[in-house]
Amino acid sequence: MDWLEQVKWDADGLVPVIAQEQGTKDVLMFAWMNREALAATAARGQAVYFSRSRKRLWHKGEESGHFQEVHEMRLDCDADVVLLTVTQHGHDPAIACHTGRHSCFFQRFDGLQWQTVEPVLKDPESIYG
Amino acid sequence: MDWLEQVKWDADGLVPVIAQEQGTKDVLMFAWMNREALAATAARGQAVYFSRSRKRLWHKGEESGHFQEVHEMRLDCDADVVLLTVTQHGHDPAIACHTGRHSCFFQRFDGLQWQTVEPVLKDPESIYG
Repeated sequence: MDWLEQVKWDADGLVPVIAQEQGTKDVLMFAWMNREALAATAARGQAVYFSRSRKRLWHKGEESGHFQEVHEMRLDCDADVVLLTVTQHGHDPAIACHTGRHSCFFQRFDGLQWQTVEPVLKDPESIYG
Repeated sequence: MDWLEQVKWDADGLVPVIAQEQGTKDVLMFAWMNREALAATAARGQAVYFSRSRKRLWHKGEESGHFQEVHEMRLDCDADVVLLTVTQHGHDPAIACHTGRHSCFFQRFDGLQWQTVEPVLKDPESIYG
């Protein structure tokens, strides 16, 4: 059985994907893939997601230069979630978030509020400008 | 603005949730929450998910005893994904997966196949029996 067929794609043909940094084990981001994106990720060794807003393949880093080298791909027990182990390239320290932060998960729940607790490492305008 | 309103709930009123183990930083599992589940998680300090198959709140560990103590909750840049930092209780070594494994992400992509690479720590029949 083909490995792509073993993934349980949702009604939109997508699977949720978690990107975790090798070494630090920080969870960097969460995105989606369709079959073509997962196949491309496996073939290139770089993360290729499916952008739900733009409805097209999104080779992470194509605009920012912040691409993700993929070391390992894992599938969960229900075969409906993928976990990537990545090295986040393009900036030191690594920037995975479009806001210029290391990780997309920079808002911490504290005092019944979501508080921003991680610094912007690079002005997003200079990343995407 | 209410912190629950700041979450961008999807068309089904759900948000994806990643549970990461404190200490090891292993990604243990992925699940979903609705508003009630997220509010309950914040109030109890234990993970309460929404089971899409059973269409009801699912207090993780309610059957297995393998509950999750929540140390931190984070929200991502788009406010549509939650990351929990947890201690997985109920068994030593910790079991988060219903298959009796530490993590749900036990299938590694290797040689164009998903290969099971993590051991069963406890027979699931004795967890749920």
